[in-house]
Amino acid sequence: MVEGSRKMVSLLFVLSLFSALSDAKLSVTPTKGVPWPMPMDYKTTGKQNTVDAASFRFTTRSVECDILLDAYVRYREAIFGRNADRFHAMRQSPKFVQMFSQEGDIGEVSVDVSKPCQGSYPSLESDESYSLSVANGQVMISAQEVWGALWGLETFVQLVYKSDTGEYMVNDTIISDKPRFAHRGLLLDTSRHFLSTRNLLRNLDAMAQNKLNVFHWHIVDDQSFPYESMAFPELSNKGSYFPESQVYTPTDVAEVIEFARLRGIRVVAEFDSPGHTQSWGLGQKGFLTECYSGVKPDGSYGPADPTLNTTFPFLKQFFAEVASVFPDQYIHLGGDEVSFTCWQSNPVIKDFMQKMSYGTNYAKLEEYYMQNLLDIINSLKRGYIIWQEVIDNGAKVRPDTVVEVWKGGWEEEMEKVTKQGYKTLLASCWYLNYISYGSDWTTYYTCDPQKFNGTDAQKALVMGGELAMWGEYVDDTNVLSRLWPRASAVAERLWSPQDVNYPLVAEPRLIEQRCRMIRRGIPAEPVTGPGTCPVEYREP
Amino acid sequence: MVEGSRKMVSLLFVLSLFSALSDAKLSVTPTKGVPWPMPMDYKTTGKQNTVDAASFRFTTRSVECDILLDAYVRYREAIFGRNADRFHAMRQSPKFVQMFSQEGDIGEVSVDVSKPCQGSYPSLESDESYSLSVANGQVMISAQEVWGALWGLETFVQLVYKSDTGEYMVNDTIISDKPRFAHRGLLLDTSRHFLSTRNLLRNLDAMAQNKLNVFHWHIVDDQSFPYESMAFPELSNKGSYFPESQVYTPTDVAEVIEFARLRGIRVVAEFDSPGHTQSWGLGQKGFLTECYSGVKPDGSYGPADPTLNTTFPFLKQFFAEVASVFPDQYIHLGGDEVSFTCWQSNPVIKDFMQKMSYGTNYAKLEEYYMQNLLDIINSLKRGYIIWQEVIDNGAKVRPDTVVEVWKGGWEEEMEKVTKQGYKTLLASCWYLNYISYGSDWTTYYTCDPQKFNGTDAQKALVMGGELAMWGEYVDDTNVLSRLWPRASAVAERLWSPQDVNYPLVAEPRLIEQRCRMIRRGIPAEPVTGPGTCPVEYREP
Repeated sequence: MVEGSRKMVSLLFVLSLFSALSDAKLSVTPTKGVPWPMPMDYKTTGKQNTVDAASFRFTTRSVECDILLDAYVRYREAIFGRNADRFHAMRQSPKFVQMFSQEGDIGEVSVDVSKPCQGSYPSLESDESYSLSVANGQVMISAQEVWGALWGLETFVQLVYKSDTGEYMVNDTIISDKPRFAHRGLLLDTSRHFLSTRNLLRNLDAMAQNKLNVFHWHIVDDQSFPYESMAFPELSNKGSYFPESQVYTPTDVAEVIEFARLRGIRVVAEFDSPGHTQSWGLGQKGFLTECYSGVKPDGSYGPADPTLNTTFPFLKQFFAEVASVFPDQYIHLGGDEVSFTCWQSNPVIKDFMQKMSYGTNYAKLEEYYMQNLLDIINSLKRGYIIWQEVIDNGAKVRPDTVVEVWKGGWEEEMEKVTKQGYKTLLASCWYLNYISYGSDWTTYYTCDPQKFNGTDAQKALVMGGELAMWGEYVDDTNVLSRLWPRASAVAERLWSPQDVNYPLVAEPRLIEQRCRMIRRGIPAEPVTGPGTCPVEYREP
Repeated sequence: MVEGSRKMVSLLFVLSLFSALSDAKLSVTPTKGVPWPMPMDYKTTGKQNTVDAASFRFTTRSVECDILLDAYVRYREAIFGRNADRFHAMRQSPKFVQMFSQEGDIGEVSVDVSKPCQGSYPSLESDESYSLSVANGQVMISAQEVWGALWGLETFVQLVYKSDTGEYMVNDTIISDKPRFAHRGLLLDTSRHFLSTRNLLRNLDAMAQNKLNVFHWHIVDDQSFPYESMAFPELSNKGSYFPESQVYTPTDVAEVIEFARLRGIRVVAEFDSPGHTQSWGLGQKGFLTECYSGVKPDGSYGPADPTLNTTFPFLKQFFAEVASVFPDQYIHLGGDEVSFTCWQSNPVIKDFMQKMSYGTNYAKLEEYYMQNLLDIINSLKRGYIIWQEVIDNGAKVRPDTVVEVWKGGWEEEMEKVTKQGYKTLLASCWYLNYISYGSDWTTYYTCDPQKFNGTDAQKALVMGGELAMWGEYVDDTNVLSRLWPRASAVAERLWSPQDVNYPLVAEPRLIEQRCRMIRRGIPAEPVTGPGTCPVEYREP
């Protein structure tokens, strides 16, 4: 048995690249059965095993739980296709008899999880490590926590490929794996355009296929308020585009959270304030600042009004509901891009500024608002993520606060934020809503969130990062194809070792990953130039 | 009855634009029941009529034909939704009883076509003009040819909108319409990535919704040869990505042509040569030039080899089949981007150059190839469309040849081509495969194919233009959402009067058109910033 290390495999990729250049049809030959993102430690050999589809099953060696049982059904389907289980059980359809008549070396995947997992939720502290071995006709996945086991299952499924004659194959492989970063997020904006719950779920599936583990749900913004609040139903009745059809009901939200949990994905909701709140004002009168033209209100509104005695009681009740609906330890509070123009025009605000001795420093007023909001979240025993402006403006935040950096000049900002001892996330390089012609995934792939000036202790405060798909130009027509597999590039950056960073080496694997995603129902668009997948996308 | 001319309506749009700026949710208010592309002469009033869904029908006043009968079914569905006819016939589903219980002013659309149309095909000479009136509770569409009637039906369907209370409405309207250009094309490239027949048909539907009338099918190229030839089956057996699943069988091709015919759309197939033919070589040995390294063939191939005595007999037989399969009067012969490097390396070619006294002018060899090919097409009694290089290289072409301009500096090229008396098409401004962030449709919208230096006679030689969606980065996952409604901008440029060219004025109509397309099953992406449609896209 000749073992190839990760680096040897990389070298083979490069060689196959050059040998493929004479092929008229494909300039790059995709890999077969190589995982994405690349595991920390990955050894594989050319020793092929057939998969015994007839008897194939997942078994649990120690603790069993809802998350594993659900995953077994899902991953069986991921290997053998939709309806595989049903037909497997029935054993009646001639069409599927052939598929399941394959006998082979590998009939069982044995999963060993140490800690109980029934009903549990992933968190920033989850242990996501796992080991996986395919050897001597046996497959074993071991993990401390179920979250690692889920990623091990995902990796195993990616090791399975079809031979030229259509047989399911898997090569002998030894993997020891854990993520480089604990927070690997994807932001969707459901305010600028509405996204159906169905597509949110499909996107969670795609995230799991790339080991992303945080769905940052930028759920409301200026343009619309699709979150249906139980305490304040007028927010979505008045603030959504269409309250009948374009809202997330409590049932929808619960479905998203449960679907995510079963895939090891946290759902971090963002309710951005005090700016980006125009749509709140439609259903919550008196929440926004009245803008003045001279001595009269001009009919338009600005950010939340921190001076009214109704503002913080409303926020307290609202966020208490948010904390009860979203189980994650963190809530994203936004805090970005607050315009001072309207505050400056309002006489009541001006009086308040004077009373508080803020002079004309409206950043102080913003800090005042945020501080009150942070205290509310504190009282709810939740942590918070905030956009960088909150720190830039000097608000005092809890030591476990996570600061998300999104502006240009992120290297200096990350240096500054970590110097103050805060955990941080990078988003600046990964605004995937911005598009350009060609293979832009390589620029996402080569952005490293720890490449800034700082001590090891500072670097250790980088929790990871998030890719963002802001909603100006995406909706249900194009959001999934625009995200994938461009988001896969970010996913590998956040999971794999720092030195796995050559686009040319990654490309053959990315092509395989895209085709794998298509086979599993995600409309991942072509990003590497002309080519094909054995199974092309078909709308479900 | 107060009538508004097209320009008055435009002014109202601009005013509504500004008044809408204070709306928190939508920055631009879409129109309701205003057609895209804008008709030549369009007068409408505020007088609303309800549509009598209960009895609604299309009737033919003079000649009847397959095209009209098919259109009536289709356009009934376009107004009342999928399955409308079935439920209308059954009158059983409680869900639909309400929809069809609406009684109203308009129960019939009467269609009058002068010329017989059974089984006919559209052509470059089609008369596409029509008139449409909605007045005194009566709707009448008149046209010389069925092609105009089809566009009249499309326009009528676009005039119908839903009131706030859900009723189908149509305003009194008088339209006299015909296209500015006879050739309004859309190029799809099915070689760099394969596109399913299903999506080709869906795209034809989208084209009809925008009155585009030529599907330029760039069916094969270097990367793959998905056209299944009856005479030369090895071309797709060897040259397609997957001969089992990624080819167009004769049945597929016939289905595309028939689907297009019923919508007034020509199918112009492009079989590009002598360059862009790598995939031909896999199934047709000896067709491509062997490239040499020194005195030996190096295993790679160049353009078609014009010196072999097998080349033109093969082409003659192949194009005879093409002419029998594709009924359109025109065949697109390509002729672009021929690289001379391989020809220059080949000793047999060099001998031939000497024999022909071409010196080292390989453009002469290219001209020789094209001239032979053009003679073949002449003998088949077909016209041809060619890319601009063929003319640039000095080949003699038939006087009815259409020259397609695709390079930069198109103004000078159009001037030159029309000075030589050739018909021409513009594609340069409309390469929709190139993408950039934001509302790029405005640049397509403002490119005018007659804006070059030339006499009126020269301008009259502009047949229209084509938008191109080359296939490097699109396949079934994203081709429709990337095309639409960006392609709608080109469609209006090619149909509507030259002075309908203000993006700000067009925008509210484009938003309505996008939502209308979504309701009719096309995943038209958002291109004007945040917003929504009453019915959001859902994969079928």
